[in-house]
Amino acid sequence: MALTELGELGRRAKQAAHNLAGASRATKDDALLRSGEALVAHREEILRANAVDVAAARAANESETVIDRLRLDQARIESMAGGLREVAALDDPVGEVVDGSVRPNGLRIRRVRVPFGVVGIIYENRPNVTSDAMGLCLKSGNAVMLRGSAGALESNRAIVRALREGIAAAGLPDDVVILVEDVRHETVDEFVRLRAHIDLLIPRGGPSLVAMVLDRATVPYIIDGDGNCHVYVDASADLNMAERIIINAKMQRPSVCNAMESLLVHRDVAEMLLRRLDASLVGVDLVGDERTRAHIARAGSATEEDYATEFLDLKLAIGVVDSLDDAIRHIRRYSSGHSEAIVTSDYASATRFVNEVDAAAVIVNASTRFVDGGELGLGAEIGISTQKLHARGPMGVRELTSLKYVIEGDGQVRS
Amino acid sequence: MALTELGELGRRAKQAAHNLAGASRATKDDALLRSGEALVAHREEILRANAVDVAAARAANESETVIDRLRLDQARIESMAGGLREVAALDDPVGEVVDGSVRPNGLRIRRVRVPFGVVGIIYENRPNVTSDAMGLCLKSGNAVMLRGSAGALESNRAIVRALREGIAAAGLPDDVVILVEDVRHETVDEFVRLRAHIDLLIPRGGPSLVAMVLDRATVPYIIDGDGNCHVYVDASADLNMAERIIINAKMQRPSVCNAMESLLVHRDVAEMLLRRLDASLVGVDLVGDERTRAHIARAGSATEEDYATEFLDLKLAIGVVDSLDDAIRHIRRYSSGHSEAIVTSDYASATRFVNEVDAAAVIVNASTRFVDGGELGLGAEIGISTQKLHARGPMGVRELTSLKYVIEGDGQVRS
Repeated sequence: MALTELGELGRRAKQAAHNLAGASRATKDDALLRSGEALVAHREEILRANAVDVAAARAANESETVIDRLRLDQARIESMAGGLREVAALDDPVGEVVDGSVRPNGLRIRRVRVPFGVVGIIYENRPNVTSDAMGLCLKSGNAVMLRGSAGALESNRAIVRALREGIAAAGLPDDVVILVEDVRHETVDEFVRLRAHIDLLIPRGGPSLVAMVLDRATVPYIIDGDGNCHVYVDASADLNMAERIIINAKMQRPSVCNAMESLLVHRDVAEMLLRRLDASLVGVDLVGDERTRAHIARAGSATEEDYATEFLDLKLAIGVVDSLDDAIRHIRRYSSGHSEAIVTSDYASATRFVNEVDAAAVIVNASTRFVDGGELGLGAEIGISTQKLHARGPMGVRELTSLKYVIEGDGQVRS
Repeated sequence: MALTELGELGRRAKQAAHNLAGASRATKDDALLRSGEALVAHREEILRANAVDVAAARAANESETVIDRLRLDQARIESMAGGLREVAALDDPVGEVVDGSVRPNGLRIRRVRVPFGVVGIIYENRPNVTSDAMGLCLKSGNAVMLRGSAGALESNRAIVRALREGIAAAGLPDDVVILVEDVRHETVDEFVRLRAHIDLLIPRGGPSLVAMVLDRATVPYIIDGDGNCHVYVDASADLNMAERIIINAKMQRPSVCNAMESLLVHRDVAEMLLRRLDASLVGVDLVGDERTRAHIARAGSATEEDYATEFLDLKLAIGVVDSLDDAIRHIRRYSSGHSEAIVTSDYASATRFVNEVDAAAVIVNASTRFVDGGELGLGAEIGISTQKLHARGPMGVRELTSLKYVIEGDGQVRS
């Protein structure tokens, strides 16, 4: 795709965004519901398109994990439609008055939430993201440009066709969702520099995509980054609680960013806890430092690299620490700033951990797995920000808005 | 400066930021007051250093404007100290609980304001920024790395020496303010890519610096951009009020970003208003379209370029429009998204302008000159953001913070 073609798509998205910005909540919700209905109505067509993508993935010897992410069935299409219905039920963030005051000179000031304009999403072989991202963007008054991967192109085309039908039926411009169909690698570079047309970029992918965005993007972006999440078990911890939390944080769904990757244990409780974990972390590949291995014979030796790695798998790096300070120092060194938990019954330890650990979420006596838009009450999420600018942690529809100062006067001038 | 040297400064700033993050408001305010006192106590030393910079600027034939910005005197040093006292009096944003709730499973959730960590500032020959930026960053719990220009290096060194003395006297690490003394052009590029050590970058400079940051920075940044600000006079406007606002917005301080650069006038009031402005905009170089020039004989012909330019001077581009729609379309095309004003007595026109114009600030019946941290009640500002991410419009201490989720439980795990 020539730059001009991508620019033309951007121009169309921007125009649609202007029209969408003033749409009422009722109209937006209607578009969301109709889009969901259109997905279900066109399910055969979507499944046929998806079968083409799946066949190509098989021919390319993609892993079963990749194919499972890519594969759609009736239930998954119904679930995408259900997601759109859930987003329709959320409060509309646009127009929310965040704060306001009257100045001594009589100027009336308020800050209101407004859409960004056009949101650009770069993502991998997950066709459900096509529908989910459109839903959250539309609800927050933003047009969306979707740049999916080559391997899901047929599925994405069919899904976007259905979504656009639903949107148009509600009287909104169908260009509020635009699929970039040129999926050559080079166009990603153009996409992240489309500053004239894209107001916010959300790259959803691995470290190489993030590195490319950091290096090349001129569009403002929010990084949905790694989760090298820790659980620290304090000397005062209730060990039953600690064991339950550790099993949940590691094993309930190891492939996601809010799963635990490293466990730190205070030396006073190391022997008792680690012996129990040896038995209860069935099927988990354990690596640890010398003091860990003294209590868990099957544990391998943990390298520097292990402590720095987001395994996204049934693997856990363990370290025994001498104090809360050591735990905080370890976390400060290796954390990716996602979610960090402490298990403790000591008030001062909890307070210090909460204050001194710098992450999107700090957790006391609960599983890291709760750091998720749904679990935190955001309704749905477009990602989890590991950056500090604009949004941190799970991002819902509110994080897809900006603010505008509205200043009203009676002829005031500055002296 | 080798990258490692800049990295070493960054490492020191990061360490200081960790210590500062937990400092009490009382300690931070004490450091601000003592820094102000140190500026005054070391005024002779600062003035001697400044004289060296001013002499060099004169030798290099810099303009009087540049020299005026650079020059310090006793009053200006006292004013810098006064600025630090004002920042000390502001509320501490750190620790503010923004929102919170209890989830159905009993998890207690809150979002609290936390410092970014290390803020990097790139700026020009304005030694007062050295003190102002340190004050706002320290108050918001951030260490600051200052990268001023070569032309103010001696002044900045003397100022930072005094500030560090005050900070240390309050018991805080003096590395909460670090001056990058290697002011070669190449080091700016390293500075904006110091992602491991700098958490937020605020470039304060012209379009070429902004372009460089967009292109090269990997550190998250907030753009303090141009203000190509418009005033639109509606058909229903009170023309006395319009004239007052126009004179103020253009003439009160033409060199700043919230001054008006373009005026749009509804055709129904064009003749009456423009004839009055011809008389009252004394000393302002006027350019306009054909319909403007029909009423202002002295006006030159406005080019496309004129409408797109932030003059920062006693020059004004004027256009006559047929409708509010035309005015909004013109603004959408040329606006830099800073501050846009309408003068009207019509409720629907005011409402549409507020809703449909996309800028950091939209103003009804008041001068654009009010878009300023002090005027809007922020106390002091570190810049005015023209981007939509994180902060929009004037940025005070609150905009120098991020958020953190704090999640507290009693052993909850996810099912």
